[in-house]
Amino acid sequence: MRVAASGRLVREVGEFALIDQIARIANGAAPRRLKIGISDDAAAWRPPAGHDVVITTDVLMERVHFRLDWTDWASLGYKALAVNLSDIAAMGARPRLALIDLALRGSERDQEVLDFYRSARRLGQRFGLVIAGGDTSRAPNGVVIAVTVVGDVPRDGRPLLTRAAARPGDVIAVTGPLGLAAAGLRVLERGLKTLDGSPAMQAAYHRPQPRVWEGLLLRRCGVRAAMDLSDGLLGDLPKICERSGVSAIIETYRLPVPNAIKWGFPDWRDLALRGGEDYELLFTAPPQVFERVCHVFRRARLRPPVSIGQVVEAGAEGPQVKLRDLLGKLEVVEPGGYTHFKT
Amino acid sequence: MRVAASGRLVREVGEFALIDQIARIANGAAPRRLKIGISDDAAAWRPPAGHDVVITTDVLMERVHFRLDWTDWASLGYKALAVNLSDIAAMGARPRLALIDLALRGSERDQEVLDFYRSARRLGQRFGLVIAGGDTSRAPNGVVIAVTVVGDVPRDGRPLLTRAAARPGDVIAVTGPLGLAAAGLRVLERGLKTLDGSPAMQAAYHRPQPRVWEGLLLRRCGVRAAMDLSDGLLGDLPKICERSGVSAIIETYRLPVPNAIKWGFPDWRDLALRGGEDYELLFTAPPQVFERVCHVFRRARLRPPVSIGQVVEAGAEGPQVKLRDLLGKLEVVEPGGYTHFKT
Repeated sequence: MRVAASGRLVREVGEFALIDQIARIANGAAPRRLKIGISDDAAAWRPPAGHDVVITTDVLMERVHFRLDWTDWASLGYKALAVNLSDIAAMGARPRLALIDLALRGSERDQEVLDFYRSARRLGQRFGLVIAGGDTSRAPNGVVIAVTVVGDVPRDGRPLLTRAAARPGDVIAVTGPLGLAAAGLRVLERGLKTLDGSPAMQAAYHRPQPRVWEGLLLRRCGVRAAMDLSDGLLGDLPKICERSGVSAIIETYRLPVPNAIKWGFPDWRDLALRGGEDYELLFTAPPQVFERVCHVFRRARLRPPVSIGQVVEAGAEGPQVKLRDLLGKLEVVEPGGYTHFKT
Repeated sequence: MRVAASGRLVREVGEFALIDQIARIANGAAPRRLKIGISDDAAAWRPPAGHDVVITTDVLMERVHFRLDWTDWASLGYKALAVNLSDIAAMGARPRLALIDLALRGSERDQEVLDFYRSARRLGQRFGLVIAGGDTSRAPNGVVIAVTVVGDVPRDGRPLLTRAAARPGDVIAVTGPLGLAAAGLRVLERGLKTLDGSPAMQAAYHRPQPRVWEGLLLRRCGVRAAMDLSDGLLGDLPKICERSGVSAIIETYRLPVPNAIKWGFPDWRDLALRGGEDYELLFTAPPQVFERVCHVFRRARLRPPVSIGQVVEAGAEGPQVKLRDLLGKLEVVEPGGYTHFKT
């Protein structure tokens, strides 16, 4: 995905000239509620009356979360913002502001860095979000990106979507296919560019779609429990079970796994169950609420969610995730998806 | 400052067990307005009615901003939060929430990491701030800390303190001594532990006092222009001049430079003028407002600010910073303090 980089080296441009260029990109479309954007010690924002504020942050580290020989700077800017938008979406809130910290080696081209911000701005604009601040720094040992997104949610009596609100009897559902991003990473690692469906897999890995509209509608439909899938279904669903004190049964044959993954990878089941970074929303809701969600999503021309199982009471052994196959055979699974530090 | 580290290695403890321990420290004293703390995809907070929200973020990188053989983890946690509190203070706002991203090698002891959070929590508590979220990650090439602080400010008709509001005739003032932190860094670099006053210099470097109460009072007293000194007086004052379209005259003999620095370092003038990381507030105000500030600070038992010069109209050559000595001789200075990327 790399093309010949144009522009001057960041270390030649200097920090403050670079910030000026970034500010010009970011401040282009400042909304009325942003009182102070990139230009001062801090950003200032007027939240709408009667709204709560939702805040999240995520770090992307070179060689841990991304490799510069596998991605271009525009995709990196997109993804760094997208993974944070996904966290805001998982609360049922609306993203408003982003602050972007970027630590650079100094050997980057200024045009690469500006592409990073342009791409983040473009993604943000789809949801009415503006880049309101951040920090630049030197990073002698690899690029570091830290993004904070601030959103808001009306105090309308409906709770935010949390991990603690799943109840026995709820349907478990996801907003889109599983395993695509993990397959995309596999394609990049192994150089499988000719594999059937590999462009879609790589796109899922590089440019995940944050389910912002879906999250807003879930909350409006009365859903109460959700999170976004960043560590894989079997990495993330146990977090809902633990926090809610419930168990979950996944009907494996219902999992929305694209055919290209089943054909392309013998271990496709692992990609779908434990592969991370899909950034689809995982939620649970009583059946009638789930029906309403399907109806509302269809009316909004969003892909309807897929039911993949049920929430049940936790047994004496505590919260568990079980897989059920077509014949009804149950298998208790070891929780586990991506985790840092552990090998 | 290093002592034998106790506890288990982070990579043995694992990411999620570590997050649980961090959450226990952070969630200890959650205020009523924090609706969701560390536990979900994002934090949720209810800003007080009639308040605007102020947000800032800063990154600290190992070997760029700190060295682990010069500092302990408690000081690191303190400083990472303090530099962000200082940005909120420089707006005249009140800090409320912090989100802390911490990327670790995995070879740290869990007790070191918990000391980091305990120390940040303790500093935050002085101002009623709570740690509301964050992210942990692996950092194979050195520790990375990114902190975001959210604050609020009442909509009482008084503007936030900005860099763009300095006016000709204003007094230029600082809230405390200059050069102490740069001297502290020099002490660490050169191993000058026996130097007179070196403990205070090191303390200024490791544990700068964010001027939160001072910032709040400045705004209440009618001050409009301020920023915090992170890049040194001659690095930061030109930013106010540029943004306000004014020039500045600094009376060098008025600069509050501690005697220990004058005695200890032949280039003390450079430390005071261009040394970074003092995190004092630099502000400008009409003389009668400055008098009011002095009075109010004294009544609040805060050290009164020191007048160090005047704001004047910018000449044909544009905004400039000039130094004036006791004899009235003027010297135009090249702006410059610490900057990333440039060597």
